[in-house]
Amino acid sequence: MAVEKTRYLLGEDDIPTHWVNIAADLPEPPLPPLSPATGLPAGPEDLTPIFPMGLIMQEVSSEPMIEIPEEVRNAYALWRPTPLFRAHRLEKLLDTPAHIYYKYEGGSPSGSHKPNTAIPQAYENAQAGIKKLVTETGAGQWGSSLAFACSMFDLECEIFMTGSSYDSKPYRRSMIETFGATVHRSPSNLTETGKANAGSPTGSLGIAISEAVEVAAQDPNANYALGSVLNHVLLHQTIIGQEAMVQMEMAGEEPDVIVGCVGGGSNFAGIAFPFLRRVLAGQANTRFVAAEPAACPTLSRGVYAYDYGDIAGMTPMMPMYTLGHGFVPPELHAGGLRYHGDAPMLCGFVKSGHIEAKAFKQNDTFDAAIKFARTEGIIPAPEPSHAIRAAIEEALAAKEAGEERVILFNLCGHGYFDMQAYDDYLAGNLEDPEFSEADLEAALAALPEAPALT
Amino acid sequence: MAVEKTRYLLGEDDIPTHWVNIAADLPEPPLPPLSPATGLPAGPEDLTPIFPMGLIMQEVSSEPMIEIPEEVRNAYALWRPTPLFRAHRLEKLLDTPAHIYYKYEGGSPSGSHKPNTAIPQAYENAQAGIKKLVTETGAGQWGSSLAFACSMFDLECEIFMTGSSYDSKPYRRSMIETFGATVHRSPSNLTETGKANAGSPTGSLGIAISEAVEVAAQDPNANYALGSVLNHVLLHQTIIGQEAMVQMEMAGEEPDVIVGCVGGGSNFAGIAFPFLRRVLAGQANTRFVAAEPAACPTLSRGVYAYDYGDIAGMTPMMPMYTLGHGFVPPELHAGGLRYHGDAPMLCGFVKSGHIEAKAFKQNDTFDAAIKFARTEGIIPAPEPSHAIRAAIEEALAAKEAGEERVILFNLCGHGYFDMQAYDDYLAGNLEDPEFSEADLEAALAALPEAPALT
Repeated sequence: MAVEKTRYLLGEDDIPTHWVNIAADLPEPPLPPLSPATGLPAGPEDLTPIFPMGLIMQEVSSEPMIEIPEEVRNAYALWRPTPLFRAHRLEKLLDTPAHIYYKYEGGSPSGSHKPNTAIPQAYENAQAGIKKLVTETGAGQWGSSLAFACSMFDLECEIFMTGSSYDSKPYRRSMIETFGATVHRSPSNLTETGKANAGSPTGSLGIAISEAVEVAAQDPNANYALGSVLNHVLLHQTIIGQEAMVQMEMAGEEPDVIVGCVGGGSNFAGIAFPFLRRVLAGQANTRFVAAEPAACPTLSRGVYAYDYGDIAGMTPMMPMYTLGHGFVPPELHAGGLRYHGDAPMLCGFVKSGHIEAKAFKQNDTFDAAIKFARTEGIIPAPEPSHAIRAAIEEALAAKEAGEERVILFNLCGHGYFDMQAYDDYLAGNLEDPEFSEADLEAALAALPEAPALT
Repeated sequence: MAVEKTRYLLGEDDIPTHWVNIAADLPEPPLPPLSPATGLPAGPEDLTPIFPMGLIMQEVSSEPMIEIPEEVRNAYALWRPTPLFRAHRLEKLLDTPAHIYYKYEGGSPSGSHKPNTAIPQAYENAQAGIKKLVTETGAGQWGSSLAFACSMFDLECEIFMTGSSYDSKPYRRSMIETFGATVHRSPSNLTETGKANAGSPTGSLGIAISEAVEVAAQDPNANYALGSVLNHVLLHQTIIGQEAMVQMEMAGEEPDVIVGCVGGGSNFAGIAFPFLRRVLAGQANTRFVAAEPAACPTLSRGVYAYDYGDIAGMTPMMPMYTLGHGFVPPELHAGGLRYHGDAPMLCGFVKSGHIEAKAFKQNDTFDAAIKFARTEGIIPAPEPSHAIRAAIEEALAAKEAGEERVILFNLCGHGYFDMQAYDDYLAGNLEDPEFSEADLEAALAALPEAPALT
């Protein structure tokens, strides 16, 4: 008898040839970032000290499709196309008429979707004659991805890892070093920012970003690389949605709702934007649900305004939903979702009503993660466990309505390096940190002066 | 331009319908195991207290092909067929004319080949009305695999984890618990064996096996499960080689040499036996290389004799290469290769000259693992790093000979839970423990009384 159809697989000839640039689908050009020094729109020339022109042109492009270089597609072929799964066993557990599909990005070299952009970023820098990339990393997902990408294109790689993660997640550091990169505990004594913050015992992503940018800006052979938020990063991730579209066609189904977790927004944009293009063209009615932590509910509770990307106010001001750049989210195992803002491109679609946002408590996401692991056999990272929770709630709503809805979510990474979180949950020791209204109020009061957004 | 062919993928219809039973290809029946109590051949009835009849019949079968139940193939479909890769980038690094292929089993629920047998073992026990499986685990690969398999077939699962691993590898324990099983630190106070060995601070696999067997034997609703060595375990793993055979045909190549690491022998048998059947039938000339640690060189330095499978001498005596059941291998990161014996079925083919054995030092295997990670993007477990080392040496030998040889190896698992070992290697702190001739001599002097093997 035939085996139940569980995985939809594609071959290397199905790796997309182009990225989907959703900027081309907007009725008018997106709002520009503003220079923190002048308050005036920041142009390509403001970015040349730390980014190669190839990436800057992608950042500001209005072309609908941008070709993927052959060397990038060859590197993608190490793990792409990624599989799309039908979650038969989870559906059965939920006793739902809904059909649940998930795209799985955890089979990549670093175990998440991050190499999708690390590879083209390393490639464009190598093409531009750059010899070294410098970046920051928090939990280590981005750092390990860039380290691997640099090893593919013979670039040096130097990574500033936030002190608390450096101390508590030694194995992500080992992974980065195994891929050949150098890791510094941040704050370090290698930069002015590091020295000025030597008193910080744990460091912060804000300090680590500043250290990396400082090193990159001072070395003409080095550039900086960012793992989320920016247009070109979201662009690179659209291979996820393009592949998923072909795979859903193989399954003979059209998603009614597409779900992803949102930290900076890149994995969500990656699965959503190719499908969103069809909605914007009036060819589909797909719903989009962005899942975020209740303790850091940027899209659900933030304001739509110009704000800095970092705590120190050194980056351009970006038009986005923000909790205020001074808002410090409470500790969460989903470290990748602890960001005060979100990608401007994604925020615009939340503002326009194309994307819904929902916030979930930490314990509820782990309850979903355990259900998923025991039925589907993949232990998810804490970040996509938010997407799993949202997908389960959609499936239960379909059951309530008695409708055979089709749900697609992005499982952007595995949880093999997050087992302490599972330990805490299973032992009943996991907290549900409260979102602080007072902190929000204080942070919003400190938004920079900039044109109001409507 | 077309993307370089890197992965050979199969669909769920290509999941093998039968397991390959190599016992059917032997010129005469395999040597029987002997009862530890009587010294007489042990028959099926000796196994019924701890194994279901379905598995016992597989253990002693002489049928050439054994059908895989539909439910087992449906569960396999969660991660099978597994991909076969062409290691283009590793070949380029080695500047070799050899073509290197690897079958990757690390995408399974527990990250290794072990679920290939955990699933059918759980299935056969569930079919027999058993409610609980009990087993031991060292590093945790087998425990996590059986925990997942039990969750698939609604069985309880109870695992005795050696004390030293329980303390030093908490995340493998978390993984087992995430899949729903109960874990006990061994020695425990739940069994007679555990109480008798309460003084052992670290425990041992020998003690944990005895604890698991004791619990299984006393509970009519419970059975025991073993993750390697036995015929039925090797049988289940032959889906690896059968898939690889189809995938090598897709690549249009025939392997000149097939390489795998050997601990108990199941992943090696899994990839080798389907190809070996063709050699035994005179249809191919494939070489087979078994890679083992220099510190535990069972096949390279052991004697071919009847010996116990465990240190305590409670299991049947099996005809195998052995370093003596009392031989305690030094600590190694490749914990899965620290076994004094090997699967009798595999040992027979070493004895007959069909399989060659080679031993590798720990640092040399990590040197190979790093080369592999930086080119292929997968961080291998310490165990298959022995296979990688052997494959690299074969590739360099082909370069020396100027021949375009085709090498296939089994990458039986990832190293995400073994990063401490990479840390030690990169810091230059990894030891190359010496194999002790004196320990070997002492252990061989204590072999049990049994018919000599020639």
